[in-house]
Amino acid sequence: MNIKGKLVTLRAMEEEDQELLREMINDPDIEKMVGGYSFPVSKFQQKEWFNTNVNNQNNIRLIIETEEDGPVGFTNLINIDWKNRSAFHGIKIANKKFRAKGIGTDTVMAIMRYAFEELQLNRLDGTIIKYNEASRKLYCEKCGWKVEGIRRRAVFKSNDYHDELIVGILKEEYEELIKWNNYWGS
Amino acid sequence: MNIKGKLVTLRAMEEEDQELLREMINDPDIEKMVGGYSFPVSKFQQKEWFNTNVNNQNNIRLIIETEEDGPVGFTNLINIDWKNRSAFHGIKIANKKFRAKGIGTDTVMAIMRYAFEELQLNRLDGTIIKYNEASRKLYCEKCGWKVEGIRRRAVFKSNDYHDELIVGILKEEYEELIKWNNYWGS
Amino acid sequence: MNIKGKLVTLRAMEEEDQELLREMINDPDIEKMVGGYSFPVSKFQQKEWFNTNVNNQNNIRLIIETEEDGPVGFTNLINIDWKNRSAFHGIKIANKKFRAKGIGTDTVMAIMRYAFEELQLNRLDGTIIKYNEASRKLYCEKCGWKVEGIRRRAVFKSNDYHDELIVGILKEEYEELIKWNNYWGS
Amino acid sequence: MNIKGKLVTLRAMEEEDQELLREMINDPDIEKMVGGYSFPVSKFQQKEWFNTNVNNQNNIRLIIETEEDGPVGFTNLINIDWKNRSAFHGIKIANKKFRAKGIGTDTVMAIMRYAFEELQLNRLDGTIIKYNEASRKLYCEKCGWKVEGIRRRAVFKSNDYHDELIVGILKEEYEELIKWNNYWGS
Amino acid sequence: MNIKGKLVTLRAMEEEDQELLREMINDPDIEKMVGGYSFPVSKFQQKEWFNTNVNNQNNIRLIIETEEDGPVGFTNLINIDWKNRSAFHGIKIANKKFRAKGIGTDTVMAIMRYAFEELQLNRLDGTIIKYNEASRKLYCEKCGWKVEGIRRRAVFKSNDYHDELIVGILKEEYEELIKWNNYWGS
Amino acid sequence: MNIKGKLVTLRAMEEEDQELLREMINDPDIEKMVGGYSFPVSKFQQKEWFNTNVNNQNNIRLIIETEEDGPVGFTNLINIDWKNRSAFHGIKIANKKFRAKGIGTDTVMAIMRYAFEELQLNRLDGTIIKYNEASRKLYCEKCGWKVEGIRRRAVFKSNDYHDELIVGILKEEYEELIKWNNYWGS
Repeated sequence: MNIKGKLVTLRAMEEEDQELLREMINDPDIEKMVGGYSFPVSKFQQKEWFNTNVNNQNNIRLIIETEEDGPVGFTNLINIDWKNRSAFHGIKIANKKFRAKGIGTDTVMAIMRYAFEELQLNRLDGTIIKYNEASRKLYCEKCGWKVEGIRRRAVFKSNDYHDELIVGILKEEYEELIKWNNYWGS
Repeated sequence: MNIKGKLVTLRAMEEEDQELLREMINDPDIEKMVGGYSFPVSKFQQKEWFNTNVNNQNNIRLIIETEEDGPVGFTNLINIDWKNRSAFHGIKIANKKFRAKGIGTDTVMAIMRYAFEELQLNRLDGTIIKYNEASRKLYCEKCGWKVEGIRRRAVFKSNDYHDELIVGILKEEYEELIKWNNYWGS
Repeated sequence: MNIKGKLVTLRAMEEEDQELLREMINDPDIEKMVGGYSFPVSKFQQKEWFNTNVNNQNNIRLIIETEEDGPVGFTNLINIDWKNRSAFHGIKIANKKFRAKGIGTDTVMAIMRYAFEELQLNRLDGTIIKYNEASRKLYCEKCGWKVEGIRRRAVFKSNDYHDELIVGILKEEYEELIKWNNYWGS
Repeated sequence: MNIKGKLVTLRAMEEEDQELLREMINDPDIEKMVGGYSFPVSKFQQKEWFNTNVNNQNNIRLIIETEEDGPVGFTNLINIDWKNRSAFHGIKIANKKFRAKGIGTDTVMAIMRYAFEELQLNRLDGTIIKYNEASRKLYCEKCGWKVEGIRRRAVFKSNDYHDELIVGILKEEYEELIKWNNYWGS
Repeated sequence: MNIKGKLVTLRAMEEEDQELLREMINDPDIEKMVGGYSFPVSKFQQKEWFNTNVNNQNNIRLIIETEEDGPVGFTNLINIDWKNRSAFHGIKIANKKFRAKGIGTDTVMAIMRYAFEELQLNRLDGTIIKYNEASRKLYCEKCGWKVEGIRRRAVFKSNDYHDELIVGILKEEYEELIKWNNYWGS
Repeated sequence: MNIKGKLVTLRAMEEEDQELLREMINDPDIEKMVGGYSFPVSKFQQKEWFNTNVNNQNNIRLIIETEEDGPVGFTNLINIDWKNRSAFHGIKIANKKFRAKGIGTDTVMAIMRYAFEELQLNRLDGTIIKYNEASRKLYCEKCGWKVEGIRRRAVFKSNDYHDELIVGILKEEYEELIKWNNYWGS
């Protein structure tokens, strides 16, 4: 099923979403703010990636869509560990103007509801490059995640090593959060 | 080239080592002390694993051998990230009697020397299940690693969730260590 | 991510760039000025080359593009040696009129910034056929490279053997260069 | 045909030579003295390498053999560039005691005779890690090669960058050498 | 690179040239004048031939093109023997009207310049069916080739055996020719 | 059927003949006397050659065997051109002592009888390196072949170019020969 937030729908990637994904991965401003990196990506390579990264039992990759703006970003729930009931989660929003609209928060909330209430996971993992204050606020102030550690000097970008925050949230923390902020209404 | 410690030689896995590896992975006492888990492994499955896990550019898997005892364990340096110059490292010793002999320390020291002085990496990563005090002492007291965080309730074993320590060491910390303990002599 | 200079964007090769690349490789005036050589190349062969030379972990091949003129040439960063932190770099500009515009300099500067400040390489290698004075000036006068040796009589072209300059630059030399010429502004 | 020196015969690699080759590539003392490097190599990997590196039109890999001692080392003539009439040559002797016997010199002389007098090449290329004085003497004092350049800080080994000598010899220099030292008799 | 004469350009075969090639090979007047023979060739067979005869390290097959008339014939440089530095060369012009224009001479001159001055070959080989006086004149009177022998009764055509001339030219003979006829200007 | 001379039997190559063939092809004294050349050949390569050079419609490769000495050499009849009714023929005898016994002559006579009287060929082709007087005598004095031409400077060996004789024999010449020398008795 598609995953619904209050603003966003998270749906499977389609072939026609590849141009959006390619733009995001080739954009130096976005690469600066995430932990990963990529050489310049061609249309052919993007399509190859798409063909070999279809959703499967342990990895879900989704397009973030709103009724007003259509596809605006990408999110995932990967390395699902069914025994330990954990998974890794990340997010990318294509365009700065979308980032102020609450789309990020709604996506993380929707992913958590799906992960904890449907998939019965027990914890979610994430990483945040230390200087990405916006991302830390999104996860740790708005969405209830905890900083659990710091991988010192783990990421090299812009000619320097940067620390990487290890963040995580447990199901019980998510449940307290929505009781407190009443995100999904009552 | 093979990697030499003071006691151990770390060499490529051979087909005849598979029985030792299978014993370790099927041993409940060992599984209890490491982060990972495995269903019971047959000889056939072990051989399949071997055939698809030959050393490659980003993953090294090695047998720990001593002159006195022959093959006594397994260690690795995997997910080598050449851009960020980091890798993940783990170790398994087959038999308790070997663990007191300094084989663990010598293996970690030899891996660090190889990773930092030959492969030119900048940091090593590891994880330790919280109650594995012996492993924490090996890495953080004898070998200079730091606890950088705690993934809370990340591993489920023996009917309970357990915290997992995130540990790491930087090249500069390794260099201070060997200056201080003079491990390799002068 | 795409690589940005002040004039140029370096992006992944696309199928529609193959005609430009084929024109360059079939042009006797260009072949005369570079170390390599090629038999006449058909559309089919060009496409085969493209299909088997997608960017990978150790080889990046890029189109040079400017806003004003679109695709104007080709550059690469190949044989990336992650342990020794070096790579080989070359460049081809399609059309003489582009060569005077500073596109060559901007491409080499952008490649160096990417290689040294993002990929964390320590040196770049190149070769220049001895009589290609323009190329020597570009690399060694404008971009800080050093002539490190001469492979005597290494290239046969136009019925004679020609010497080939071995050129290289270290990260520290690039850093001094940009401090001195303030290429990227302050 | 096999290639004959005064002491050595250079012959094709056979499957039974793989253990010798594996010992050489896993030996840290040998790795220290050559430009290349290798992770620990298993029997399986060595065999795979053998199966995919059969002599072909552009690459010859040979075992050095003497009547007295049998197989004692490995030499090659690779990247044969038939248009520019050049090739890259390297050598490894397994055991120190063999190195004093003139086996190195005889191998290089035999390779040069074959390359220049049979294959009609015009130059041979090589590289020598700077501190390998023995190798420099062998090539540049006994066998007529010239140092043509220095790739500065090109090889990382034993926790430091090392310069690499670029060496080469032209056919005319070989011809002068054997006239002068009368190596092959008259 | 493409090969330039004074009138002709020799370029790689393209798929759209196959109809011209098929017409030539199916034309009895042309078959009569060359040493080879062929059963009637279908479009499918012609395409198969094209797909398996892409230019490679030892065989170059080229379309003869002029600015005025477009594609007018086919020429090759095959069985390149890099050690002995020789190759076999042949030519076919599609239409009689082109044969008087100097296209044949210009093609042979351009092939020789490429073979001797770029590929560094030392001799070219050819064969001429004895009664093909025009071809003998082209090669042996205008282009400096020598008749080196006669394979008696080697070709059976039109119900009779015919002798075949063995022709060849050495690099030094080509060099004398262009000094004497100043073909490429001074 | 096997081909019988007066001394020799010519039979298909077997796997157990590969060692003999490998010795011949690796022997520098034999390589010097034939037109072809080969890099050093391993057992594996020899076997590959054997597997891909099974006798077929256009190529026959045969072991020369005598009752007294067993396998003593190799001969072939290749590039059979059924339309022009010609083929190329060559011979190699392993050991000098066999060459004086009339084995060479008997092999060539047997091949000719087979080619002309069984296969209905009309001519045989061969090449002889100019200084191989023994081979010229065998073919042209004892077996009725004619020198039809000289490919000047066609073979490079022992640091020089050598001429290559083009030799051939027609069926009618073979018939005259055996009438005259009564080789097969009456």
